[in-house]
Amino acid sequence: MKNKFYQYIQTLQDQICKGLEIADGQAKFREDIWTRPEGGGGRTRVIENGEVIEKGGVNISAVHGKLPEAMRQLFNVGEADFFACGLSLVIHPKSPMTPTVHANWRYFEMYDDNGNVINSWFGGGQDLTPYYLFEDDAKHFHQTCKTACDKHDLNFYPKFKKQCDTYFWNAHRNEARGIGGLFFDYCKATDSMSMENWFNFVSEIGNSFLEAYVPIVEKRKDLAYTPEQRTWQEIRRGRYVEFNLVHDKGTLFGLKTNGRIESILMSLPPHVQWHYDHHPKAGSEEEKLLQVLENPIDWV
Amino acid sequence: MKNKFYQYIQTLQDQICKGLEIADGQAKFREDIWTRPEGGGGRTRVIENGEVIEKGGVNISAVHGKLPEAMRQLFNVGEADFFACGLSLVIHPKSPMTPTVHANWRYFEMYDDNGNVINSWFGGGQDLTPYYLFEDDAKHFHQTCKTACDKHDLNFYPKFKKQCDTYFWNAHRNEARGIGGLFFDYCKATDSMSMENWFNFVSEIGNSFLEAYVPIVEKRKDLAYTPEQRTWQEIRRGRYVEFNLVHDKGTLFGLKTNGRIESILMSLPPHVQWHYDHHPKAGSEEEKLLQVLENPIDWV
Repeated sequence: MKNKFYQYIQTLQDQICKGLEIADGQAKFREDIWTRPEGGGGRTRVIENGEVIEKGGVNISAVHGKLPEAMRQLFNVGEADFFACGLSLVIHPKSPMTPTVHANWRYFEMYDDNGNVINSWFGGGQDLTPYYLFEDDAKHFHQTCKTACDKHDLNFYPKFKKQCDTYFWNAHRNEARGIGGLFFDYCKATDSMSMENWFNFVSEIGNSFLEAYVPIVEKRKDLAYTPEQRTWQEIRRGRYVEFNLVHDKGTLFGLKTNGRIESILMSLPPHVQWHYDHHPKAGSEEEKLLQVLENPIDWV
Repeated sequence: MKNKFYQYIQTLQDQICKGLEIADGQAKFREDIWTRPEGGGGRTRVIENGEVIEKGGVNISAVHGKLPEAMRQLFNVGEADFFACGLSLVIHPKSPMTPTVHANWRYFEMYDDNGNVINSWFGGGQDLTPYYLFEDDAKHFHQTCKTACDKHDLNFYPKFKKQCDTYFWNAHRNEARGIGGLFFDYCKATDSMSMENWFNFVSEIGNSFLEAYVPIVEKRKDLAYTPEQRTWQEIRRGRYVEFNLVHDKGTLFGLKTNGRIESILMSLPPHVQWHYDHHPKAGSEEEKLLQVLENPIDWV
């Protein structure tokens, strides 16, 4: 399974980078290959200063070795060998009318002393962070997620949509990071779902990404915006930074386990602002977004 | 002691705000009084878009009540009542030639069931974060710290200078946040230092702040700088954000104990950038700064 999934995310990285380059129309991804001293490495692809995309990364990695202390604590296990691979992407568009998107699909294995797999699971998801709320975009993104989920289990979309709202909750701000999507983790073999079934599900979601995001980019990328709207985007990007550095398990985990810092922090936006005690005007479009972030709603 | 120290930081807040307003020459601090539902509150003073200061805060607070869970874990104690008060300041100047400064002075008391003080200590310090290294500025700042320390104990400056380098270490970047200063914590009564002695020491440092910082501002505020130097400042400010949100105990503590978010996060810079895998040119002034941050040195 590990080879099959790693093969899959390599191909998916190619497809997604290609699709995003076409959507941008100007910038190309640059590639950095890196190795991890303790075992494994990755292929980081970053795009900057495009026509549409201001900064983004579509990264894959496959790492293995002794389970680091931070992971042992997280999983509450003793010494063990592990393998983990995944694709992580974050795209920060230039225009405040175009939402930021994040996605991640990952697979994990743990081994006993004889190298037998004692535990394995999939995780991942995709979620949207708009700066201005276009309800059509939210519905399109969630509908695409739901369509992909429904092919596997009708309970998946409501369950993983709710988990997404819970996970991407910026607790110290009492608001969601964005308008959600899907989040799933520790997807292990059960009577009804074999690991093969989970692979089919996770790859179905991975394959839905471009369809979920690119039509939104196409619709919004040429809309005019004001400097004030750009400022609002940069202030909201500050909340994105706060979530990723304070709450996001994946980011903190990478920072504390000697991950490749530049690959992990490619998720941070290019230009960000913090104003003291900023509040949008009553009845404004900016306030309308906040209301939805404070009270996540069902889009489909 | 708690009344005496709270009285002191109220006066110090007035003095520092006055001194910084004079140094800025244009902007004035705005004040927000807030109360903490569980007991106590604070007086936040923020300055924005000045001639010299782009964003800064000089905040005092005095809080009390049941020790929150996060503090109990930090101090490794059971249920208890507490009182804590302090002054925290961060100043982000507009010019990349003028360093950011941070300072904090605080006092803590814990009580038994009968309201008797069972533990009390002081903490604090002040540290400088330049974007371009002027050795004269680093020497002046550290010399002012040392002069203040030496009046109380000749061991204090070397000890608290070293603790500052250790505390403000941005571990995931393998570099210091800035060029340091002083950091001290859990300063409790001993045979050689009564709480009264510690009060005198901490207020000596508090009183040295304007002398340590303002002359540097005066020397650097009118220097010309290029857009590229401004970009470098904003990239380095990103490291400041990373330290505060990932490593700083005070910030995380505030975020996880229902502190007043806007008062805590006033420390974040106004405009910040993250570029992928940015490295300054070999032999540049920017690289010279990094060398000092990677290998903290003795300035006096």
